[in-house]
Amino acid sequence: MLADVTTDLVLAVDVGGGTTKGEITDADGNVLCADTVETPYGEAAFEAIETLGLRLLDELTPDLRDRVARAAVILPGLVDPDRAIALFAANLGWRNVKVGSRFTDRWGLPVLIDHDVTVAGWAEWRYGAGRGHDDVCVLIIGTGISGTLSVGGRLVRASAGQSGVAQAGEYGHIPVRYRDGLPCPCGNVGCVETVASGPAIARAYAARTGREISGADVVFAALDTDPEAHAVVDDAVDALAAGLLGVVHASCPELIVLGGGLARAGTVLTSALQARLTTLLRVAPVPRIALGEFGIRAGLIGAAQLARTGSLR
Amino acid sequence: MLADVTTDLVLAVDVGGGTTKGEITDADGNVLCADTVETPYGEAAFEAIETLGLRLLDELTPDLRDRVARAAVILPGLVDPDRAIALFAANLGWRNVKVGSRFTDRWGLPVLIDHDVTVAGWAEWRYGAGRGHDDVCVLIIGTGISGTLSVGGRLVRASAGQSGVAQAGEYGHIPVRYRDGLPCPCGNVGCVETVASGPAIARAYAARTGREISGADVVFAALDTDPEAHAVVDDAVDALAAGLLGVVHASCPELIVLGGGLARAGTVLTSALQARLTTLLRVAPVPRIALGEFGIRAGLIGAAQLARTGSLR
Repeated sequence: MLADVTTDLVLAVDVGGGTTKGEITDADGNVLCADTVETPYGEAAFEAIETLGLRLLDELTPDLRDRVARAAVILPGLVDPDRAIALFAANLGWRNVKVGSRFTDRWGLPVLIDHDVTVAGWAEWRYGAGRGHDDVCVLIIGTGISGTLSVGGRLVRASAGQSGVAQAGEYGHIPVRYRDGLPCPCGNVGCVETVASGPAIARAYAARTGREISGADVVFAALDTDPEAHAVVDDAVDALAAGLLGVVHASCPELIVLGGGLARAGTVLTSALQARLTTLLRVAPVPRIALGEFGIRAGLIGAAQLARTGSLR
Repeated sequence: MLADVTTDLVLAVDVGGGTTKGEITDADGNVLCADTVETPYGEAAFEAIETLGLRLLDELTPDLRDRVARAAVILPGLVDPDRAIALFAANLGWRNVKVGSRFTDRWGLPVLIDHDVTVAGWAEWRYGAGRGHDDVCVLIIGTGISGTLSVGGRLVRASAGQSGVAQAGEYGHIPVRYRDGLPCPCGNVGCVETVASGPAIARAYAARTGREISGADVVFAALDTDPEAHAVVDDAVDALAAGLLGVVHASCPELIVLGGGLARAGTVLTSALQARLTTLLRVAPVPRIALGEFGIRAGLIGAAQLARTGSLR
C-alpha cells in the first residue's frame, strides 16, 4: 500500500558545495533523525548522498521506515525538476546526471529533485515569513545571493525557452555597478554579490580595518556603532536595494524576505534595506522587508515540504 | 438576445492625456469607424469620451449598431479594473471616478475599464510581437516608459495588497542613476525615463547640437552615423538595459518587446539594446529583443481584444 505523504514521514536532503545535510521528519516537522556529510566531487558525491540517505533510513525502526513515503533532494546549479536531472552543478562536477531515478533505485522511494535556492525561497514564501501573501520576493543571502519571486500566488520559474540555461532569481548577479565595481567570479563586473554577500561584506571590512570577521558579525558591529562596519553595511544595503529596484517596479511585491545565513544578523539588515528602498522609490510602492524565519534551514524545510506536497505550489 | 462578443463588433476607446481615440472594429480587426478628440480636464473629459462613443455608434447602420456587443475604455494613471473605477489620473484630474457604470448607462453596452499601458503591453504580448511566448517583458516607449511582464503565460499585475497604490510595470521610474542622474517629475533622480524616453532623447540631442528633432528622429540620425545622435542613443540604451537587468534576473523572460512611439525608429533600437544586454549579462540568459508590431495603436488594439475576450488572459 502506498504510504500517505501528507501524514507520513519524508526524507529531505540538501546537497551543498561543502556539506550535504539530510533528515527524516514527520508531518509536524519533528526531526526523527538527521546527519551531515562532506560533499565530495563527481561520482563520489552521488555515493555520499546515497549512503547518507540509506544511513538515515536504517536509523528508523522497521515500522517507521515503512512510513517514509517520499524523498526530495535539492541541488545547486541548474536542475530540471520535471526530468529529475542535474543539468549542471560546478561544485559537484555534475553535468546531465539523472539523479532522481538513481536515488529512487537505491532508497526504494519516489524521489523528487529540485533547485536548492528555489526550494528554500519557496519555503520562506509558503511556510515562513511570506506565508499568506501572493506577491513575495525572497533573497537567500549567504556565500552567494539568489532567491525567488512569487507573483499572483505562483512561483516564477525560468521559462520553457530558457530552462536548461537559467535559474530564475539570480539576484546576486545583477550587475548594479558595471561601470566601476569589483570583478565577480561569474565574469561580470559589479554584481550585487560582489558587495552584499557575506564574504563580500567580510572582505570589505577586512580591507578597511585589517580585522577578519564574518559578514554577519560585521552587520552586528554596525549595530554597535563601529563606523567602519557601518560604512560597509551601508554599501551592501545600497547594492541590495539597487538590485531590487527592477523587480519592485516590474511586479510590485508586497513583501521582500531576507533569508539565509547573513539574515541571522537580524533586523539591522531589514531596517536598513527598508530605509534605503523608502528613499529610492517614488512611483512603485515600498514593499515591507521581513526577516526569513528558517535561516540556513530553509532548504531542508522546503525539501521536506516538497516531498510532502509533490510540487512547489 | 445578447450579442456574441467573439464574432461581433466592439467599441474600443484609448483615453490619453492629450487626445482620446475611439474605434469600432469587427472580429477580423477591420475598423468600421474611428475618431479622435482632444481630451479636456475633469468632468469635461468624461463628457468628451461619452460623446465620442455615441458619435461612433451613431455612424453605424441600426443593424450594425445592434451588433456592438461590448466596449472597453483604457485610461492612464491608477485603475481598478474589477470595480471599473479610475482611482487616480493626474492628466484628467480624476480621483475615484466610477467610470464603467457611467459609460454603460450612456452607451447601453457592457463597458470594461482597464489601464492603458497594461492593455497595450498585453496586446503586444498576446497578439503582437510576443505571441506564442509565455515569458515576455513589453516596454511601451513614448513620452514615458512603462509596460508589462508576463510570467508562465500570465500577466503580472500589482498584488492585492498594492492595488490602488500601484501599477506593475513602471519600468520608466526605475532610478538607474540615482547618484548622479537628472531629476524626474516623479520626484526621484535618474529614472530610466530621464534618459531613454522620446522627449529625454530629444532634449539630450538638442543640448548637444542645438537642433530640436523628435526622439525617434534622433535614433534615425544615429543610424546615419551622426556622432552626437549616436552618443545620445548609446546613453538611452544603457539606461534601458540597466533598468531591465533586475527583471531579467528575476524571471528570465525569453523575449523583450519594445513598443510605442519611439519604437517606430525600428531595429536600430532593438539591436543596440540586444548588444548592450549581451555585454551586461553573464549568468542570466540574454533575452531576444523584438520590435512591437502595433506601434502607438497597441492600446486601441488591446482594448478591442479586451472587449472581446472579457479579461487580460
